[in-house]
Amino acid sequence: MRRQSLEAAVDRVKAKVWTKQTAVSRVDAGRLSLLLHPSLKSSEGASPIATGLGVAPGAASGLVTFTAEDAARLRARGKHCILVVTETGPADIEGMKAATGILTARGGMTSHAGVIARITGKPCVAGVRTLTVDLAEMSCRIGDREFHAGDRLTIDGSDGCVYAGMLALAQPHIGGAMGTVLGWSDASRKAAVRTNVETVESAKTALSFGAEGIGLARSEHMFFSPERMLALRRMILSEDEEDRSRAIGGLVDFQTGDYSALFSTMAGMPVNVRLFDPPLHEFLPRGEEEIDDTAASLGLAVRALRLRLERLAEINPMLGHRGVRLAITYPEILQMQMQAVLAGARAASETQSEPVLVEVMVPFVSTATEVAFVRERVDAMVANSGLLRSDRVQFSFGTMIELPRACLRAGDIAQMVDFFSFGTNDLTQTTFGISRDDAPTFLAAYQRKGIYDSDPFVSVDEKGVGELIAMAIERGRAANPRLKIGICGENAGDPASLRFFAGLGVDYVSCSPYRVPVARLTLAQSRG
Amino acid sequence: MRRQSLEAAVDRVKAKVWTKQTAVSRVDAGRLSLLLHPSLKSSEGASPIATGLGVAPGAASGLVTFTAEDAARLRARGKHCILVVTETGPADIEGMKAATGILTARGGMTSHAGVIARITGKPCVAGVRTLTVDLAEMSCRIGDREFHAGDRLTIDGSDGCVYAGMLALAQPHIGGAMGTVLGWSDASRKAAVRTNVETVESAKTALSFGAEGIGLARSEHMFFSPERMLALRRMILSEDEEDRSRAIGGLVDFQTGDYSALFSTMAGMPVNVRLFDPPLHEFLPRGEEEIDDTAASLGLAVRALRLRLERLAEINPMLGHRGVRLAITYPEILQMQMQAVLAGARAASETQSEPVLVEVMVPFVSTATEVAFVRERVDAMVANSGLLRSDRVQFSFGTMIELPRACLRAGDIAQMVDFFSFGTNDLTQTTFGISRDDAPTFLAAYQRKGIYDSDPFVSVDEKGVGELIAMAIERGRAANPRLKIGICGENAGDPASLRFFAGLGVDYVSCSPYRVPVARLTLAQSRG
Repeated sequence: MRRQSLEAAVDRVKAKVWTKQTAVSRVDAGRLSLLLHPSLKSSEGASPIATGLGVAPGAASGLVTFTAEDAARLRARGKHCILVVTETGPADIEGMKAATGILTARGGMTSHAGVIARITGKPCVAGVRTLTVDLAEMSCRIGDREFHAGDRLTIDGSDGCVYAGMLALAQPHIGGAMGTVLGWSDASRKAAVRTNVETVESAKTALSFGAEGIGLARSEHMFFSPERMLALRRMILSEDEEDRSRAIGGLVDFQTGDYSALFSTMAGMPVNVRLFDPPLHEFLPRGEEEIDDTAASLGLAVRALRLRLERLAEINPMLGHRGVRLAITYPEILQMQMQAVLAGARAASETQSEPVLVEVMVPFVSTATEVAFVRERVDAMVANSGLLRSDRVQFSFGTMIELPRACLRAGDIAQMVDFFSFGTNDLTQTTFGISRDDAPTFLAAYQRKGIYDSDPFVSVDEKGVGELIAMAIERGRAANPRLKIGICGENAGDPASLRFFAGLGVDYVSCSPYRVPVARLTLAQSRG
Repeated sequence: MRRQSLEAAVDRVKAKVWTKQTAVSRVDAGRLSLLLHPSLKSSEGASPIATGLGVAPGAASGLVTFTAEDAARLRARGKHCILVVTETGPADIEGMKAATGILTARGGMTSHAGVIARITGKPCVAGVRTLTVDLAEMSCRIGDREFHAGDRLTIDGSDGCVYAGMLALAQPHIGGAMGTVLGWSDASRKAAVRTNVETVESAKTALSFGAEGIGLARSEHMFFSPERMLALRRMILSEDEEDRSRAIGGLVDFQTGDYSALFSTMAGMPVNVRLFDPPLHEFLPRGEEEIDDTAASLGLAVRALRLRLERLAEINPMLGHRGVRLAITYPEILQMQMQAVLAGARAASETQSEPVLVEVMVPFVSTATEVAFVRERVDAMVANSGLLRSDRVQFSFGTMIELPRACLRAGDIAQMVDFFSFGTNDLTQTTFGISRDDAPTFLAAYQRKGIYDSDPFVSVDEKGVGELIAMAIERGRAANPRLKIGICGENAGDPASLRFFAGLGVDYVSCSPYRVPVARLTLAQSRG
């Protein structure tokens, strides 16, 4: 797919050779996505200093970094960085998520780095044979050039090229023929397309790509800057009420501004806030140094902090004390989040003419009793806020459906909520019994031996996960005919999966901003 | 329930007041289980030195130990030990599994220690307020007495008493009225009762309780002694074929003897061997010291060993590189296990008149392609062995059904196997998205707030997990009418769950030896 073929399609419609629907149906949604990653500005004309395998598409530039800790630190300061490693393993996941791009000396398409990079949408160049990393010196050689931590580097995960320095990148945009074809496609699809974002910047990108709301704002992402992280840690580690109340006060203030800005950016469109999901220990310090720093900043004894860390540690965090379990066992976290959401909605409603459409959803539920417990508290806070007295703020409450049991009990759960949002990532992990982070060690062999038809984290597993989703929709709608249905996992940006979801009659899908055009087109092609 | 009430029931039948079936129906299966734990010999008359809460029933005596590492080391040497700690957390799970009994200073019925102890069937006394542990000195005080690592201690988890020294324990036995009532119950149940054991000693206990076969022999348990563990580690860590072949040769010899003895003990009854299940890193050294020792024993550089350990580490081992994934990615492990099973069957068949009934099953499958891959290799080895030429050895192949996707795809999978064995532990973990090991941090709050009707790891969750099991049985039998159905998780020893399974028409259940009588009685009470 080139931009030219889109232009040719538009010309055929103008010449009345094709109808608009024919043009929409002829565009290859899978190839469209290749036009939707950042790329090197063609004017640059720089020479690569090395080439490897482009295993995850898109270009990225940033500061050279060698460890997960440094990548997280840079990210927290708003800096882009390229994680440079010999090869990646489970210990590098957090660093990969924090990095803007990934560069490895070993591995190919199905290596750990390749799989995780594609899942997290990070550009990645793997298997650069001329790269050697010296962790002791915090430096690396690429061919005959030496780079130290903090030096600048650019990679292009589409063709495997590596460049010295920070080259200018072109952000993908929609316009011309692509905009025209996507406009036509909007007229012929039933399901809405939303996006998964937490920041105003990403929300604006998604709006420029045609997003019609936010389907997933991961509220915990609002704590990633250093001072917020410290306030969050103070709350998690507080031993007495006074200390905890002080920490919570600061956290509410931070977030109120964030939510208000997000609601204003999306004025008149729904914004879905997912309550806190990850286990608390994911926000606590790990390395020796960071533990010492945190203890000093919070005025805690290092020994006491270590003891607390040990108590919060988990063997299988993916199946641990997270999601709705946190809302139930730490009601002050639920309260803090709802305070901030409601204050943000009030602030936004006072400065804009469109209504503020707030959705709050609770993750990782497996029983209707969990949902009832949370809904009761949320409803009380919403009622207390007085926000619903005018129609300037609308509020709805829903639940993620991301565990097999939630699918089975969808009939009970649907009676307690306004909407379901299927989280295909966790639902795939639990249905298959596979940790996405750990899968790369056997997924490569599985693909070689043809055990899976396709990677279920990319295209929804129709015969397994898909049956659970279909069952949940049927049971949910039977129990609550006004139930709204959304999909918000990685699958929601994959053409094959989108066709499947369209067939189930979902009300909306929500994907990362760069996937929004793919979803708009595919849903138009899939209408019944 | 006292033995006396059993005797009264038998007397009523003798007096023709009750029929045998009435007697069977009147016995409370839940209370029967209280008679089936080791207990203090009443003749002892010792005075407790402290009392706490009896949070997991049964008496245990052994050497005082304070760390998971020491408990594992003692267990490997065949010693019983009592793990003594202030309170337990996720880091103590391995120690708790290795210990014979657990004693804690803090916590109650729903503490981490209590929940894990009951799940693993270990006697546990918790919340002993006069206990203080000094880890630096490897000693503890209980009241005014001091104990060091290696001192002897006895606990009674039924009444919470703690005694100095190793008191004599009475093993539960079946005889007299209990034996009579259980004999009657055997006549009126349809499903067979098997047991989950790996050693000849446990198999004999289970036989004395009326087990009719082994439903689950966890093959990895055969590697728990120090020299076997070293051979296993040599295989896991071997980098070249020659080294690996040598390690495997030694491992086959060890296991052949084990299997032969197990088959002979169970002569004429089915013995179900589950292929290797846990991720390989669970068998590798952890602490500094153990890593150094292992490197020295295997002639590896410590640095290289650490690198290898890092590469094998997993974030969510429960959802990681385990079960059938090992058989597919390390075919030499599958080959080694099958060699040993077949050689063991041959040896046993040469010394006994009854046929050797071998069943092999593959764990943690989610697709029929996985099962087909393993079955093809297993069938080839069985055919090569020539064992099936006479009818002295019978062989069948099956799969664990312990993932939601396996339940959904049961129709495909059933066509490849002779039997399904439901693993309710992992199926409950994945259906609910709960790690059993990590659950104690929120399960206590859930029970207090009434979120769950009952603990799904004790009594099967009929509305969720139960629906998946019923669906899998229906789809499996429709696709393969000769399919045999068994249940082998913790639920298979719980009366409420057994009634549910009986209603599904399972062919057998398999539980720990001490639960066999409970299963015999409950299944008789539940016949349709």
